[in-house]
Amino acid sequence: MGSGSSEVRVLGKWASPFSNRVELALKLKGVTYEYSEEDLANKSDDLLRYNPVHKKVPILVHNGNPLAESLIIVEYIDETWNNNPLLPQHPYERALARFWAKTLDDKILPALWNACWSDEKGREKATEEAIEALEILQEALKEKRFFGGESIGLVDVAANFIGYWVEILQEIAGLKLLTLEKFPKLYKWSQEFVNHPVIKEGLPPRDQLFAFFKASAKK
Amino acid sequence: MGSGSSEVRVLGKWASPFSNRVELALKLKGVTYEYSEEDLANKSDDLLRYNPVHKKVPILVHNGNPLAESLIIVEYIDETWNNNPLLPQHPYERALARFWAKTLDDKILPALWNACWSDEKGREKATEEAIEALEILQEALKEKRFFGGESIGLVDVAANFIGYWVEILQEIAGLKLLTLEKFPKLYKWSQEFVNHPVIKEGLPPRDQLFAFFKASAKK
Repeated sequence: MGSGSSEVRVLGKWASPFSNRVELALKLKGVTYEYSEEDLANKSDDLLRYNPVHKKVPILVHNGNPLAESLIIVEYIDETWNNNPLLPQHPYERALARFWAKTLDDKILPALWNACWSDEKGREKATEEAIEALEILQEALKEKRFFGGESIGLVDVAANFIGYWVEILQEIAGLKLLTLEKFPKLYKWSQEFVNHPVIKEGLPPRDQLFAFFKASAKK
Repeated sequence: MGSGSSEVRVLGKWASPFSNRVELALKLKGVTYEYSEEDLANKSDDLLRYNPVHKKVPILVHNGNPLAESLIIVEYIDETWNNNPLLPQHPYERALARFWAKTLDDKILPALWNACWSDEKGREKATEEAIEALEILQEALKEKRFFGGESIGLVDVAANFIGYWVEILQEIAGLKLLTLEKFPKLYKWSQEFVNHPVIKEGLPPRDQLFAFFKASAKK
């Protein structure tokens, strides 16, 4: 759907939910792009040149202009390709979407991540914080199908970690965090999310992710 | 300049650069607002009700709609009141402004803050990181008068801590971080910033800030 002359490239890491956000946003817009997988133990010259400040993926390069930070890239994609809007129209609704996306990164994702990788000693507290984080997020979903309402929006894309990664990580960790019983609305959302035709297509294969994180857990 | 019927309230903390960003943005737009000073040791019911997720200031309440997180509030203000735009028009330039505002919060401010409050032991490393952070920021300024170009924009507002607070904190700490000799462009920017008529009016009094942080340093 994007303009025919534009050249879009993504530098990413296949197992990273942050990289995946950028790919999901491009797929939701129907933008074709070239993807370069980065070896983070041996970062490419392009990565270091395009993101000298943070030296991280994902990076979007659009017509030669590089951009870093996944949420900022997703907003840029939304402003550049106007079909299938990811942010609401009204300034207050837009601000709330940004608030929840930021809160995912600052509070909710770290809490879930910590719980899934916590050792025996820190597990109880980390689990408590993860549960609290999921309660906050479920509250934000209200009775909606997606965080974006009837269609996928910025917050849904930003919550890909909750919608897909957490189920894999909690299985590896032997934890029950996001379950139908504990978080019915959020669990239902995660099912809607992973079964959305574009999202389904855009998520990394479950078995590969499972193997990747299982191997990390052993280290 | 704002619409006559709108009711704008800020819950803030006078010495906080994050609260100050919201006040600066409103003043740059010419929006009148009611200000409530919060006692963070004894948070008001309004604060807890309006920002139950983070329980922090600043909070903007516009026509009864509460919003938290200073950068998100500044963007909301920019989208709601269209005079004196704080973000550029072009999506890529907008994205870069957001990138630098986020990088200030994630990397540059913490580095400066840590250096100013570091103990003997951690001082050398913290100072090194602060210098590196200032180098990165000066690079972003290029040869421009303001980060926003010829007028104050989102990044300038977001960098209020660098433009005003740092000079006070480094004096208390006995450090020389942001100086004319070391960072001529950034130092010049800080002078332009604090002498901008609206900014000058909107910053907390230097002597009070100095006394406040001097007292904190003694604890």
